[in-house]
Amino acid sequence: MSHKIINVTVRDVRFPTSLEQHGSDAMHTDPDYSTAYVVIDTDCGLKGFGFTFTLGKGTEIVVCAVEALAGLVVGKFLQDIVSDFRGFYRLLTSDGQMRWLGPEKGVIHLATAAVLNAVWDLWARAEGKVGTVLRYYEKNKISFTSMTHELLSSFSCSQDLMLKEGYPAYTTSCAWLGYSDQLLKQLCTDALKSGWTKFKVKVGADLEDDIRRCRLIRQMIGPSNTLMIDANQRWDVAEAISWVSSLAEFKPLWIEEPTSPDDILGHAAISKALAPLGIGVATGEQCHSRVMFKQFLQASALQFVQIDSCRLGSVNENLAVLLMAHKFQVPVCPHAGGVGLCELVQHLILFDYICVSGSLSNRMCEYVDHLHEHFTSPVVIHNAHYMPPKEPGYSCEMLESSVQRHQYPDGDVWKMIINK
Amino acid sequence: MSHKIINVTVRDVRFPTSLEQHGSDAMHTDPDYSTAYVVIDTDCGLKGFGFTFTLGKGTEIVVCAVEALAGLVVGKFLQDIVSDFRGFYRLLTSDGQMRWLGPEKGVIHLATAAVLNAVWDLWARAEGKVGTVLRYYEKNKISFTSMTHELLSSFSCSQDLMLKEGYPAYTTSCAWLGYSDQLLKQLCTDALKSGWTKFKVKVGADLEDDIRRCRLIRQMIGPSNTLMIDANQRWDVAEAISWVSSLAEFKPLWIEEPTSPDDILGHAAISKALAPLGIGVATGEQCHSRVMFKQFLQASALQFVQIDSCRLGSVNENLAVLLMAHKFQVPVCPHAGGVGLCELVQHLILFDYICVSGSLSNRMCEYVDHLHEHFTSPVVIHNAHYMPPKEPGYSCEMLESSVQRHQYPDGDVWKMIINK
Repeated sequence: MSHKIINVTVRDVRFPTSLEQHGSDAMHTDPDYSTAYVVIDTDCGLKGFGFTFTLGKGTEIVVCAVEALAGLVVGKFLQDIVSDFRGFYRLLTSDGQMRWLGPEKGVIHLATAAVLNAVWDLWARAEGKVGTVLRYYEKNKISFTSMTHELLSSFSCSQDLMLKEGYPAYTTSCAWLGYSDQLLKQLCTDALKSGWTKFKVKVGADLEDDIRRCRLIRQMIGPSNTLMIDANQRWDVAEAISWVSSLAEFKPLWIEEPTSPDDILGHAAISKALAPLGIGVATGEQCHSRVMFKQFLQASALQFVQIDSCRLGSVNENLAVLLMAHKFQVPVCPHAGGVGLCELVQHLILFDYICVSGSLSNRMCEYVDHLHEHFTSPVVIHNAHYMPPKEPGYSCEMLESSVQRHQYPDGDVWKMIINK
Repeated sequence: MSHKIINVTVRDVRFPTSLEQHGSDAMHTDPDYSTAYVVIDTDCGLKGFGFTFTLGKGTEIVVCAVEALAGLVVGKFLQDIVSDFRGFYRLLTSDGQMRWLGPEKGVIHLATAAVLNAVWDLWARAEGKVGTVLRYYEKNKISFTSMTHELLSSFSCSQDLMLKEGYPAYTTSCAWLGYSDQLLKQLCTDALKSGWTKFKVKVGADLEDDIRRCRLIRQMIGPSNTLMIDANQRWDVAEAISWVSSLAEFKPLWIEEPTSPDDILGHAAISKALAPLGIGVATGEQCHSRVMFKQFLQASALQFVQIDSCRLGSVNENLAVLLMAHKFQVPVCPHAGGVGLCELVQHLILFDYICVSGSLSNRMCEYVDHLHEHFTSPVVIHNAHYMPPKEPGYSCEMLESSVQRHQYPDGDVWKMIINK
């Protein structure tokens, strides 16, 4: 079947997470996790669902950008898109007038991700197969380099391991910056009982607070579990080095986003200074393109690559980064959380393990336990591992009732808040 | 007077420049030069005008972003803004929810520039003085470093030279990619007669074409005039080096935007390879922040800094880049053209000469001869030099009749084109 795209709609869907300080960090004190939510209609009735992630205010700008890109998509046939996916990617990112608004960064690139995520979802549904990214791999394996051939032999057993045990995850849900020590303790206790062994703590607002919180969580999880810290870009380069050195006694595996996400050479300086302390640098959730990741890798500016399924240009650009990370032998530990990011990124990380890296060493995927109930195929976590998805598609579809209730500003949830 | 900001409006204003291939280059084949045009109203009746520059499609997205930022501006007093301009800048760029859309890049940063340009225009008008940026310098000189003190002595005589001779300019108007050889010859002849000595040629689509066009223009301007070439990001790194080497015989001063504007290390490699040929690398019109410029300078990745008055966060961020460029002793040759960019950037380049660099060596400002007639205080070019502006303000104000005629899609100009 040809699957002609006949309509692209986009809605502004926001969850009032700021009311309970979920997701709070040193730079984003009051996020309302949100999406610009895209639905693609085809002439045969099949739909594709996609979105990009935002923090509330300004989601309407991304919605406006998706509407501008929609004109490039309506009328296309799915078969034509996937048989020249590079050409289609360039069509969206290199429009002679719109590329000035990026290029390939900020609002216009978030919108590109939303549209392309929906195209991937549509494709996987059209194929009727589980695992969008794996399907792409299978269809295109001959176009990968010789690297892939050698990995091909391990394909089956890697897949079996994933089906049995799943992909290791870490949790960020215990220690948002706005949480009290008491809440942090309670959540940490619960998480340990549920089998979690890797924990991330938000830092960067106040050093004394950070020392107290890191000491508390290290005491609770013991010396053999893993601790990571995340400053969400709060520092400049010298400040990052000195601040993190003060937290070295708590043995964090990495410091995440120590400074401006654009400061590649700054990250390189921080990486060099912290290496003797055994602390790596992780970044990527606001790294806007493969060109930026290329330089982070070239400059030895990070030791953990944190791809984002909605910041980069969908699966297409994420695959490029996975392959570069493999070339530089740097582990990929995706950013997730927000709303729906876990649902999407699980596909990418399974692809990375099964088809690219073949290793779980120093690799894990972020997990946050919010808002999964709004998806038709939410992630399944078992014993702190992501279990492979079982439904065809890219797991982007939200419950229509959730979308309607959370539409901004007219959904029931927002009407109630605004009228308060 | 306090000047309370009571309203911020923004309009989508587009000029159908693509109809005649004005502004065409290897990546932007059909630009319609446009602005998101901002007017700030104050309680005492004084207005501030500002804009950011776009290429047509997608201007409505920037308009939407300005509307989102307007909420942070309305109700503020001008005096409070300018007495803590850094705080106000951070208010616009670091909103806990909206910064996810950048941060400080793409659509949201273009919108920030539009709003801040209007604030600068308002401030200069409120002060009733000529030269927005110089006013800022005079008011804040004690907060600059010792570097400024030493420059202070040369202040008066530098200013006198500018008033008398103006700031040297180069022209891009002769050799857009879409122009025929015949048109190119005609425009070049005219420009030579008007006193132009520095010429930029668009390249990058086809090597044989480029060789023919560069040979033609070098023959016309002779060996002692200056030639620059501009590829508008068309190449990858290796391709850039080989292509430009093929054009070396025409002695270009610089190759502009040889590759992705985000590829700092790529530009460094190109700079290193082309240095023996005596060709520098110029870039910046799509360099989105001071953090990126910092690294371009740190990595010796450019030999000419091309600031943009509407891509960076207005005067504030441009001043940061001017000071960094001075520290690294790299000349600043601003990007201009489009619509209104010449009007704005003349203030910045005068500030650079009078207060920072004190030198004209290898320095010149781009000039393009389109669309100035739509401004209330258009730039004055005399003998290929920018003459200092004489009206108070940041020269952003457009003729209201022009704005109305070119509003998209309802202005008369667009109604006529759309109905054709």
